[in-house]
Amino acid sequence: MKLYNYFRSSASFRVRIALELKGLAFDYVPLHLVRAEHLDASYASRVGDPLVPALETDDGHLLTQSMAIIEYLDETCPEPALLPADALGRARARALAEMVACEIHPLNNLRVLKYLKHDVMLDESGKDAWYRHWARSGLEAYERQLKLLAEERAAAGLAASVYSVGDTPTLADCCLVPQIFNAQRFHVDLEGLDLVMATFKACMALPAFQRAQPSACPDAEA
Amino acid sequence: MKLYNYFRSSASFRVRIALELKGLAFDYVPLHLVRAEHLDASYASRVGDPLVPALETDDGHLLTQSMAIIEYLDETCPEPALLPADALGRARARALAEMVACEIHPLNNLRVLKYLKHDVMLDESGKDAWYRHWARSGLEAYERQLKLLAEERAAAGLAASVYSVGDTPTLADCCLVPQIFNAQRFHVDLEGLDLVMATFKACMALPAFQRAQPSACPDAEA
Repeated sequence: MKLYNYFRSSASFRVRIALELKGLAFDYVPLHLVRAEHLDASYASRVGDPLVPALETDDGHLLTQSMAIIEYLDETCPEPALLPADALGRARARALAEMVACEIHPLNNLRVLKYLKHDVMLDESGKDAWYRHWARSGLEAYERQLKLLAEERAAAGLAASVYSVGDTPTLADCCLVPQIFNAQRFHVDLEGLDLVMATFKACMALPAFQRAQPSACPDAEA
Repeated sequence: MKLYNYFRSSASFRVRIALELKGLAFDYVPLHLVRAEHLDASYASRVGDPLVPALETDDGHLLTQSMAIIEYLDETCPEPALLPADALGRARARALAEMVACEIHPLNNLRVLKYLKHDVMLDESGKDAWYRHWARSGLEAYERQLKLLAEERAAAGLAASVYSVGDTPTLADCCLVPQIFNAQRFHVDLEGLDLVMATFKACMALPAFQRAQPSACPDAEA
């Protein structure tokens, strides 16, 4: 498999985590987003939507959209599972993943920040306020969701989750961890997000998350 | 089951389509987003992230995030399936769904438009340009993706898909159709999106999509 990807792209980071958790080998194909290498016709014409990541399977299919890729990996290489075994648990993990992938990240990715700068003419402080607003409010919602899940587990006599949902990392953690990296890079206030940050810490104690992080990528920059 | 929802919310619309396609009965609980009824403590404290839709299952679990809800419905009530049977087809359908749910809709929902107006101080024409930019560019990407899939099918000796992926509606169509409704409402140029609009038309020929549309909802307004 080949992963088209950029070290700083948090959607790429999600897929790297999934690949590392499953112990799957892959060729790392860097595309420098700031230098717009993802817009080169040779790549853009093959993926339709010129974004990273894209995963090229061994039989030559090019898959796009990070969550769809992770679900594909989970279906084709089921161990270790990245979704709980029961439908309710799976719904919980997917909902948390989507809180990041549909509520936070789309508002704060590179092309949106570029549009705010060049088309809306928003200055740096306005852009920073925008970034921090969506990141902070989205992570607060994630924190509240983790609290509700902890209460639900407690009511069922279960111990608190180690990761976002349960005692093994799931799709939700693949999405949460890159979002925290981004938040730290943009100096988002993470104070009071106790459950979120405990989950982040538990994830980062695992070698798979360490190996997937931006600074461990071949195209990493200081 | 109870569906907490708003007739004009396109994420709510996605779930209504899925419920109708599967022929599942549900109680419709309207929450008026513009009157901020979703922020009432009685609802907000139960869902964590005060958004619609939320689905309350018969055993009292409250599920959030439209795509996670649809995947749950597809796992617990498998017929008719809303995802293809093969992993590659499933990845294709999920990726298309996410092109809407992660690339277009998050930029154009009510709370973002409100922030642009009140915090960025963007005027009406700037807000319209923002809306149309993300809707049009996202739908153009969806069109290119449908073209690539049609070429892939042709190369495999298969006829063109009737819906986004294959000959039955999937999660992708549940996401695409509400986005087209929104685009029409905001006068987004849909010229040249031939495959997208043929797919939309095929969907709207089905009674399930008709029954799910905003104008058919109990809380519909002119």
